Parts: sequence; C-alpha cells; structure tokens
Amino acid sequence: MVSLKAVRPAISCSSSGLESGPSVPLPKVGFVKLPLPAPSPSLGLNVSNNARLSLVQATEESAVSVANDRAAVISGQNLRQMATNGKATNILWHKSSVGKLHRQELLQQKGCVIWITGLSGSGKSTLACALCQALYSRGKLTYILDGDNVRHGLNRDLSFKAEDRAENIRRIGEVAKLFADAGIICIASVISPYRRDRDACRALLPEGDFIEVFMDVPLQICESRDPKGLYKLARAGKIKGFTGIDDPYEPPLNCELVLPQKGINYASPCEMAETVISFLEEKGFLQA
Amino acid sequence: MVSLKAVRPAISCSSSGLESGPSVPLPKVGFVKLPLPAPSPSLGLNVSNNARLSLVQATEESAVSVANDRAAVISGQNLRQMATNGKATNILWHKSSVGKLHRQELLQQKGCVIWITGLSGSGKSTLACALCQALYSRGKLTYILDGDNVRHGLNRDLSFKAEDRAENIRRIGEVAKLFADAGIICIASVISPYRRDRDACRALLPEGDFIEVFMDVPLQICESRDPKGLYKLARAGKIKGFTGIDDPYEPPLNCELVLPQKGINYASPCEMAETVISFLEEKGFLQA
Repeated sequence: MVSLKAVRPAISCSSSGLESGPSVPLPKVGFVKLPLPAPSPSLGLNVSNNARLSLVQATEESAVSVANDRAAVISGQNLRQMATNGKATNILWHKSSVGKLHRQELLQQKGCVIWITGLSGSGKSTLACALCQALYSRGKLTYILDGDNVRHGLNRDLSFKAEDRAENIRRIGEVAKLFADAGIICIASVISPYRRDRDACRALLPEGDFIEVFMDVPLQICESRDPKGLYKLARAGKIKGFTGIDDPYEPPLNCELVLPQKGINYASPCEMAETVISFLEEKGFLQA
Repeated sequence: MVSLKAVRPAISCSSSGLESGPSVPLPKVGFVKLPLPAPSPSLGLNVSNNARLSLVQATEESAVSVANDRAAVISGQNLRQMATNGKATNILWHKSSVGKLHRQELLQQKGCVIWITGLSGSGKSTLACALCQALYSRGKLTYILDGDNVRHGLNRDLSFKAEDRAENIRRIGEVAKLFADAGIICIASVISPYRRDRDACRALLPEGDFIEVFMDVPLQICESRDPKGLYKLARAGKIKGFTGIDDPYEPPLNCELVLPQKGINYASPCEMAETVISFLEEKGFLQA
C-alpha cells in the first residue's frame, strides 16, 4: 500500500527579502506516470484529504539537503548583484528561490540547448520534429526554436544583412539559454552559417549544455531537395546572400554530433533522432 | 494495488509521411508526486520491467480521444511537404507534431503569461518569486522573465531611451509568448510603464492567456522603500527618465488583477500570490 499525503495549498514566501527569517524548504517532488483515470482507494492507492492525485506531495529525507542547497543559493551575493551591462546601468540581478535545479527535478530532465545547424534543406526542421516527438514519448519537455518562426515574432525587425543575421542568431541563443534555464530541452533549428555566431551562443551556456548538431548534407543534395524553392530563387538571383550559393556556410570544427553519420547516409529522421537521444542519455540529460 | 506498466523506449515516428497508415498516438501521461525514495514492490506498488518509476506509462480509455485530437492536429495544413533524395521522392512532414496541447498535458497546466507591472519598488519581483514558489509547491512549472535580468542577456543592446524601452518590452512580450506556448506559466516582472506597450504584448497572446497584474503601490511608498536606491539617484538627477519621477507611469485601465487589493493594504507577498493563484485556478490554468 502506498500512502500519499495531499499537499495543502501552502505558499512559502522566503524569497522576498522583506523578511529576515530562514527560508521554508520547498517540497521536493518526484513524478510518476500513473494509470488514468485517477486510481480510487479501491485500487489500493490511498489519497488523503480528497486531493487531486496530481497534488500529492512527496516527503523524504533528502529534502533536507535540498533545503540546504536552496538556503545557500538564496543567501549572499547571489540574491542581488549590482551590475552595469550592455547599454544599461543600475541593473540588479534578481535570483528566484525556485532555481534551475528545482525545475529540472520537477521535469526529471536537465535543461540544455540542442543547436541544429546546416544548409537550407539539410533536414534541420525534420530532425527537430522527430526529436521533439521521440522525447515527448519519453515524457520529456522540449521546445523548438525554429529560425524561420522566430523571424515572425521576436526577430521580425531583422533583415538578412550581415549584422542582422548575427543579431538574429544572438537573440535565438539568448532565448535558448532562458529555455534551458527553465529546465527545458530547447531545440534550436537555424542555418546559423558562421562559426563565430554559433560559438557565441555556445559561450552563453554552461560547459556541456550546448549540443551542436551539424546536418552534414552536401549542397548538391540540399539544392536538389529545395523544399522551399529558395535555391531556385537564389540561382535566379532573386535572393541575394543565400547560404551555400553566394554566402558561405562554415561547417563546425568541433561539434558534438555530425548527422547523417558516415556509413548511414540514408538514416531516417527517426534514426537520427535516436542518435541524438542516445547522446542525451549518455550525458545524463534525460534525468534530473 | 496499482499496477504500472513501464514505457519501452519507443520513438513513434508516425508523422514522417513515409507511412500512410494512421498515426500512432503519443502516450498520454499523467503526473503524480510520490514519496521518495522510490517505492519498492514491498510497498505494494507494482512496477513491471524494472523500469525507473519516472518512466511508468499511463494506459487509459480516454487515450482514444487524445489520439483523435492528435490526428486532427497533424492532418491538413499543418503538414509540410519536403523533397529528398532518400528512399522516397517526397516526404511529408508536419511542422511539429508535438504541440502546445501535448506539452500542457505533460505538465498538467496551461501556458499563460502573468504580466506584473508597476513602479520600481512596488514589489513586482517579490510577488513574482512568491508566485513561482507557491506554484512550484503545487508541482507547476513557471519561469520568471525579470525586466532587469533580461537586460543582462537578450536585451543587453538596449538603453533606456524611449524607443529602446518599447523594444525592451516588445522582446519580453515575444519571449513570454514562446514560454506560454511551451506550456509554461511565464511570469513577466517589468515596470512596463506605457499602456500601448503592454497592450501590444497582450495582443500577442490568445484571448485570456495574458493576465495583467498591477502592483498598485503609491509612488510615495515605493520611494520610501527604494530597495535599489534608484529613486535617490533619480531625485539627485543622476538617473534621467526614471519612471514616476521624470517619466510617466500609466496604470492599467482594464487589467485582470490589482494588488494589493483595497482593504488589504498590507497583504504579504504570499497572500498576494494566493490571490493570483486563485485567479489561475478559477480560469483553469492549473490543469491541462
């Protein structure tokens, strides 16, 4: 018999800085997928307080260490740091009491950025989707930052001239960093032709959390696919500065994964997704 | 006795268009917090296949409707056509088979933006932290976009001149939209003094998903708090264009919540967080 204790709606509010008392530890939670509809007491799962099953709290010894970790995090100079950054001065850093580790625990995964780079038509979006789906089937939360999509929103003010392309990548890198900090496996799918721009994004993340995946598909093949008809327009001179045609693509020198792998030239998107997932598993990203 | 079935590492790849059959439904998952360390069979929780508890799959009748929903989602115009030189000449692929609804199901919550606006020192960050913590204790995933923090990264290229302030808010709105789309309860904590800028952010989100919370604290009180010493600098003329001093703050006309509520002038951050959470509960954001 597993006895589960319902969480009472409790708001612990140690982070305000207005109070001087010690912080109340956040409850440590573990997730398990259970049969739905919700098991009833007759199934032997004992839920007290008539709580919804999703509000059942874990109690465990190791919560103490979490509380201690947390106390360390929210104390001292991490709490607020005065800084001058970029063009703005007098900017304070606000540290929240719920940090990346807590979110990762909730999600049972580690936040990271999977940066898929390659020519137009090399299969970046296809791989991103296959990855997203395969990870979802494992209960993992992903989010795709698609280069094209972002240009409809956040980066709608940017053109394709050199400095705007760099700014496009910089912003995607910064947003990907926020998603990784949120505990999400963020899949960025962007041509990102220049090494220096990709490296700048890598430098935003903690060591190991930026996983560069190069879609190593020859220009000739990408052009023969031409899924959006863009190569045709570029060859006709209707698009200027098109990567691979009249603008360079700099392949990664030291990326984490090259796909398709040599000898598996016709790997399906699912097989390529499996390769990435094996990498993630090996590096421990698929658990908290 | 609750019998749980382990999920086999399965990548369902029904969306590639290589297959013509019906799509394989993604497993519907439900989360429940269980006592940790992981229950053993002796506790009466039967886990087959020696699976890690976090990889236990739900089986349920209503999966059928999910499958149907999903089939609807991935059919039609969501599909995108791509050419390849692989084994098929045309590969159909949908933009992303895992959508907002799937992520929300995984998280058992609805993505939204809680936009906290108010003068410097009005308690925006404090409320954001209290909210974040209270929602975490309920197993909900939040992410705080703090106006100051974002200026360290994504918006480091922006100053405080008028057009840069507008761009600052625009970008935060766009990123908040992405987070909400990811299924996350995104808490934006930014002065955002102008109505038109806040309204533009509201317009990015589906109706009802933008929850504007006004920290209605008089300038006099904010200035007496002066947590960052900025009012002092502004009064001394060392900061120009400071909201409330020599730049206007336009209070919302039709926001979702005004805090502190009248008659509860000294509500604690926790109490204010409870007010927001009640609103979220009422509107159904705390379940999928």
